[in-house]
Amino acid sequence: MLKLDNHPSGRHFLHIPGPSPVPSRVLRAISYQTIDHRGPEFGAFGLELLQKIRLLFKSDDPVIIYPASGTGAWEAALVNTLNPGDTVLMYESGHFAALWKRLAQRIGLNTEFISKPGLEGWRGGVDAKAIEERLKSDPDHLIKAVCVVHNETSTGVTSDIAAVRAAMDAANHPALLMVDTISGLGSANYEHSGWGVDVTVSGSQKGLMLPPGLSFNTISAKALAASKTATLPKAFWAWDEILEANQTGYFATTPATNLLYGLSEAIDMILGEGLDQVFARHQKLALACRAAVKAWGLEVLCQDPSVYSPVVTSVLVPESIDADALRKLIHEKYNLSLGTGLGKLKGKVFRIGHLGDCNELSLLAALSGCEMGLAAYGFTPKASGVVAAQNILM
Amino acid sequence: MLKLDNHPSGRHFLHIPGPSPVPSRVLRAISYQTIDHRGPEFGAFGLELLQKIRLLFKSDDPVIIYPASGTGAWEAALVNTLNPGDTVLMYESGHFAALWKRLAQRIGLNTEFISKPGLEGWRGGVDAKAIEERLKSDPDHLIKAVCVVHNETSTGVTSDIAAVRAAMDAANHPALLMVDTISGLGSANYEHSGWGVDVTVSGSQKGLMLPPGLSFNTISAKALAASKTATLPKAFWAWDEILEANQTGYFATTPATNLLYGLSEAIDMILGEGLDQVFARHQKLALACRAAVKAWGLEVLCQDPSVYSPVVTSVLVPESIDADALRKLIHEKYNLSLGTGLGKLKGKVFRIGHLGDCNELSLLAALSGCEMGLAAYGFTPKASGVVAAQNILM
Amino acid sequence: MLKLDNHPSGRHFLHIPGPSPVPSRVLRAISYQTIDHRGPEFGAFGLELLQKIRLLFKSDDPVIIYPASGTGAWEAALVNTLNPGDTVLMYESGHFAALWKRLAQRIGLNTEFISKPGLEGWRGGVDAKAIEERLKSDPDHLIKAVCVVHNETSTGVTSDIAAVRAAMDAANHPALLMVDTISGLGSANYEHSGWGVDVTVSGSQKGLMLPPGLSFNTISAKALAASKTATLPKAFWAWDEILEANQTGYFATTPATNLLYGLSEAIDMILGEGLDQVFARHQKLALACRAAVKAWGLEVLCQDPSVYSPVVTSVLVPESIDADALRKLIHEKYNLSLGTGLGKLKGKVFRIGHLGDCNELSLLAALSGCEMGLAAYGFTPKASGVVAAQNILM
Amino acid sequence: MLKLDNHPSGRHFLHIPGPSPVPSRVLRAISYQTIDHRGPEFGAFGLELLQKIRLLFKSDDPVIIYPASGTGAWEAALVNTLNPGDTVLMYESGHFAALWKRLAQRIGLNTEFISKPGLEGWRGGVDAKAIEERLKSDPDHLIKAVCVVHNETSTGVTSDIAAVRAAMDAANHPALLMVDTISGLGSANYEHSGWGVDVTVSGSQKGLMLPPGLSFNTISAKALAASKTATLPKAFWAWDEILEANQTGYFATTPATNLLYGLSEAIDMILGEGLDQVFARHQKLALACRAAVKAWGLEVLCQDPSVYSPVVTSVLVPESIDADALRKLIHEKYNLSLGTGLGKLKGKVFRIGHLGDCNELSLLAALSGCEMGLAAYGFTPKASGVVAAQNILM
Repeated sequence: MLKLDNHPSGRHFLHIPGPSPVPSRVLRAISYQTIDHRGPEFGAFGLELLQKIRLLFKSDDPVIIYPASGTGAWEAALVNTLNPGDTVLMYESGHFAALWKRLAQRIGLNTEFISKPGLEGWRGGVDAKAIEERLKSDPDHLIKAVCVVHNETSTGVTSDIAAVRAAMDAANHPALLMVDTISGLGSANYEHSGWGVDVTVSGSQKGLMLPPGLSFNTISAKALAASKTATLPKAFWAWDEILEANQTGYFATTPATNLLYGLSEAIDMILGEGLDQVFARHQKLALACRAAVKAWGLEVLCQDPSVYSPVVTSVLVPESIDADALRKLIHEKYNLSLGTGLGKLKGKVFRIGHLGDCNELSLLAALSGCEMGLAAYGFTPKASGVVAAQNILM
Repeated sequence: MLKLDNHPSGRHFLHIPGPSPVPSRVLRAISYQTIDHRGPEFGAFGLELLQKIRLLFKSDDPVIIYPASGTGAWEAALVNTLNPGDTVLMYESGHFAALWKRLAQRIGLNTEFISKPGLEGWRGGVDAKAIEERLKSDPDHLIKAVCVVHNETSTGVTSDIAAVRAAMDAANHPALLMVDTISGLGSANYEHSGWGVDVTVSGSQKGLMLPPGLSFNTISAKALAASKTATLPKAFWAWDEILEANQTGYFATTPATNLLYGLSEAIDMILGEGLDQVFARHQKLALACRAAVKAWGLEVLCQDPSVYSPVVTSVLVPESIDADALRKLIHEKYNLSLGTGLGKLKGKVFRIGHLGDCNELSLLAALSGCEMGLAAYGFTPKASGVVAAQNILM
Repeated sequence: MLKLDNHPSGRHFLHIPGPSPVPSRVLRAISYQTIDHRGPEFGAFGLELLQKIRLLFKSDDPVIIYPASGTGAWEAALVNTLNPGDTVLMYESGHFAALWKRLAQRIGLNTEFISKPGLEGWRGGVDAKAIEERLKSDPDHLIKAVCVVHNETSTGVTSDIAAVRAAMDAANHPALLMVDTISGLGSANYEHSGWGVDVTVSGSQKGLMLPPGLSFNTISAKALAASKTATLPKAFWAWDEILEANQTGYFATTPATNLLYGLSEAIDMILGEGLDQVFARHQKLALACRAAVKAWGLEVLCQDPSVYSPVVTSVLVPESIDADALRKLIHEKYNLSLGTGLGKLKGKVFRIGHLGDCNELSLLAALSGCEMGLAAYGFTPKASGVVAAQNILM
Repeated sequence: MLKLDNHPSGRHFLHIPGPSPVPSRVLRAISYQTIDHRGPEFGAFGLELLQKIRLLFKSDDPVIIYPASGTGAWEAALVNTLNPGDTVLMYESGHFAALWKRLAQRIGLNTEFISKPGLEGWRGGVDAKAIEERLKSDPDHLIKAVCVVHNETSTGVTSDIAAVRAAMDAANHPALLMVDTISGLGSANYEHSGWGVDVTVSGSQKGLMLPPGLSFNTISAKALAASKTATLPKAFWAWDEILEANQTGYFATTPATNLLYGLSEAIDMILGEGLDQVFARHQKLALACRAAVKAWGLEVLCQDPSVYSPVVTSVLVPESIDADALRKLIHEKYNLSLGTGLGKLKGKVFRIGHLGDCNELSLLAALSGCEMGLAAYGFTPKASGVVAAQNILM
């Protein structure tokens, strides 16, 4: 049997910002026998799933489900709507924004990146004003799409997407609005239709509490219209055949059946708890986590309280600490996995995930591990972060 | 599907002193398809299992595995070795000792109970001296068995079984020594052969990290000899046919096959970690738990540090607190299950299990829940128990 | 991980008359995390379970669920209702009837066994007339209980329990009627209340499609009344405390929680299909199986078509065949497990289980394996049993 | 819980040519908790997995594992190695060959399709001679790749890839050889290195006995060299970053962790049985299946015995039968799923999968269902296919 499944007792605490821990209820759903994806049971299952997933996106528009991980859905959003050499305006809010930009370049788009010097852009939300200004200086509408990240997993910042939409409207600019909420969906409020997003990109292994392997494009009528004439080459990602097959609950190519079982189950869990309750839970856990960080005498990377992420908190460590050495120590001593610093933040932060299948006691366990680890590393926390967090959670 | 498996996200923390949380590795083993318990695969499996389970008991003697819960194994120990009306000397160390005594009476034995007034006997270990004295006053050897509980789940006391053996030897008394280590096995050191125990009684749902449904009798040559002539009626519990069938790896009646899968897996986990490491882990967690209790300003029920249980800590609450109302509040607010006060302790204690699939962070999560619950109930802990526990665990 | 779970591909066909194959839906239910059996979720779960299980027995009376295998429930039926030395009238309808009798003797009852010479009694149903006559010759009502087996797993005979009841009524005899339907329940029609049974004994691993480890006593008011004064020693099996605890959905001793999950799920499956549909399915499969046996030129052990078992078919082999060698060959060549000949039938029959999670194609697969195995053994079937069975199943 | 997991008892027989039934051993592996794909356990796991998967392809070259289904791997093979407008020579051996061609066109390649009139090309293997001739008439080497399907799932034909290689060598043509063995790998012999294949495309849900969601590119040094300069846009599919990350056991983008658990387990199962044994088993089952078809008086679609597929048998039905209506009837009456006729074969064939977790008795069950279904549909089979198949399997 699976060699990995060979460790002694003692639960692992997975507090990276995704993949988040998969609830046993979802793991059980995934272990249901694979069925014929062209048979009648599948069609009924698919139809229901394709309807109820819209609720997660607060979307009146269809959701495309790819049997692929999130990077694929980034690519899909672009290749379905754009032409070779088109200009897309992206915003450097963190590492994943930078990766999406690199991907756009690789597939033949002209990317323009709004960046701020040093870490400045990584410590706050998307600057809607800057986007507005840039769009106003594009009278010929050469910019075809504005691409922003909703929840930046690398920094712990959740940007204000409604503000970006307002900025585009204020500039009276016809570009498509594409939003990556891979790590936000199901944890932070998100409104595909309400915010006027054209393509929402998401994935399974974060707030949806699933293993990686599914990703999503939620597409507005405007995006769909653009896809009719877009000429970037595409086949696997092409929306047209998928949408057609989805009408009867089926898929154009072989779907990742067992992960779809898990998706159905996870949606039921989230809707059963209630989206508002889920978001409130995340907000409270995040608040408690930040209280702990402050108690330790450390700094939360995000400097703007209005865009603190409910999903993940990035913690800046002093120069004297190598954040990755600290993470390794914590992993080995306390069986707790934390997120690494990515890109510009390598070695400078560790990230605490508090998303998905997380509650008060899981978070307090993780914070306990962090503060014991900090002490073991030689850094004496100013005060107990756990106690500070408890004060929030009570 | 199972309606119970229908709750929203957020992990439950099960910190009762058994059933302890079942590791997913064991749950997966249990979900392996049931096979023919008379087929060749089963025989090979059974032979290996019946050998390796001896290591858990540190036993050179055979272990009988019943497809039944622990109460059954209590009964089995008695009906296999005793005659109607025989006198057994038992020791009131807590609620489970009292239950075993009641069971002995129901099946027609004459029980003699060494008790101390009030809660005194419940707050310390078995008094070997008292046993020795009683045996010395039994020159005709009317007492046929001495029955003691190794780890009293109701009180959090782990008695010194070697001392009981020494007391019997000092009295030069031939009674059988029967020990219940239902909640001690696999968490606290136990030495069936080394301590000269005649019948060890145990169960699956504590340190063995299994669901309830299996129980054990480990039997010395002396106990086996007694069973040849013992006349209490017995059939399901009778050792003779089981031992005979066990010689080829099979069972006399239908075994609880899937729980045996889990048992095999759990033994592998425990031996993989190493018995000494497992015991040391439990001792450390228990020490941390008691430090938390003291920090809160509460009292550990057990008054003798030499017999603190590594498995469970019973916490005395002040008169102003109804321990069961407190437990209910903690369960509802923090998704944490704690043990109730049993028998004489009803409403007076809550019990924190720290056994089996438990590690530093699980315990700290549980302690966090306790101290937030105490505060929510209106009791202000003197200091943070979590911080006190962390200081032990670092 | 579990070493047994280490075989190459290719499904095993388990066609012994129990344990029957456990559906993956039930295995998944069993793998749900163990919960506190004294917590509020458990109480609600238990109450519902204890109600719905009555439907399986067609009982207005309560069902006791033991965390033990079937032999235990045999013992429980007797020790709860009888006194030492009481006479019970039993009927030798096969190997399990003989085992039950031996058990009754071991626990101190005086057993009287209605037997027929040689295999005669094993090839037909319980002779209600013989019971009636014996009871009529007991004017002092020394016989306290009549014990019969509903579905004899060793022979493939399902006796007429209503006829036994009628016989007892005709004799106007007050003995209790105890019936073992360990292998009949959930596969063959059974009516605890309708047939006036006093104690029904059953188990989990047959028609209920569960792993072994649960067993049942369903008890009439008359049996319950008898239990108030019965003096056979009992504790683990005692109904009184269990019934009291069951009133709020809990159990007197630790229940086999995870098997109860499976039980709940299996009941939902059976009631979802409908009891009548389940019974009709078994009848049809049994009919097809017997057609195959006849086509092969072999003899069905049961000689009375009115009591053919819908659960299992015992096949007599010619002298030239050692049935166990044949079973071994079939197991090795075709990955198919068949039941062995028990007691008087050792080496003379093999048994084909067609119960529980069985359907047309599973049965045809098993029959295919049997007939290929017969041929490989050197016996040329007269005609294709599979084709004969298909003709029934179409 | 998952609503699909809500059906009554009776096992479903999934005999479509993929997804094939997933063994419970693999389903259990998949249900292991998701871990940090950037943590140390994952790296060790990945390194081992990336090595052992080569054995399945008989490859000295690296295997790329995509978190995507098979269509994606088709696209990946092309975009990594070719330039916009490049000509690829493809061969119409069936429906999937036609789909691959359409995909190639959609991503901007110039496709040339060797086809035969009507169904001719669909009833035999790839005509290596025809490829050789075409290549010889391409002195300027405008053809950049030859793309063929190894096992055509739609027809039940397994083409001779070594012959295609020989044809290319005979033409002394430098085109890349790309082979789709999505449904052949792990069931039919395949030799990536031995046959000189440049890019092998495969997927998880056929011979590998996994759910859909993983696909593969195995790449020769020549293909890798081509990828350095190929200009078709690519990002998600790009080999460069994946290969780099794979060197330490990690992946460039988030891997489908839980499906990788299953992949590791499935490889262990296959290698545990032995590749040669696995292939021989499939050959024998296929031979038996064809014997059944002939016995029924029906025609196997494939007309060339040298290229019969060991994976799937397509059965031509007479004009009087609508193959899809027949499949529906069989599904409803006998809980058996068969493959539909695709493309040109719609309504004209049904397909019997005998791959992966399949053995003698599973196949005989499926054949039983087919022949009872044929009869129920009104077609009287000439003779019993099951009996004919048994004669092969004995």
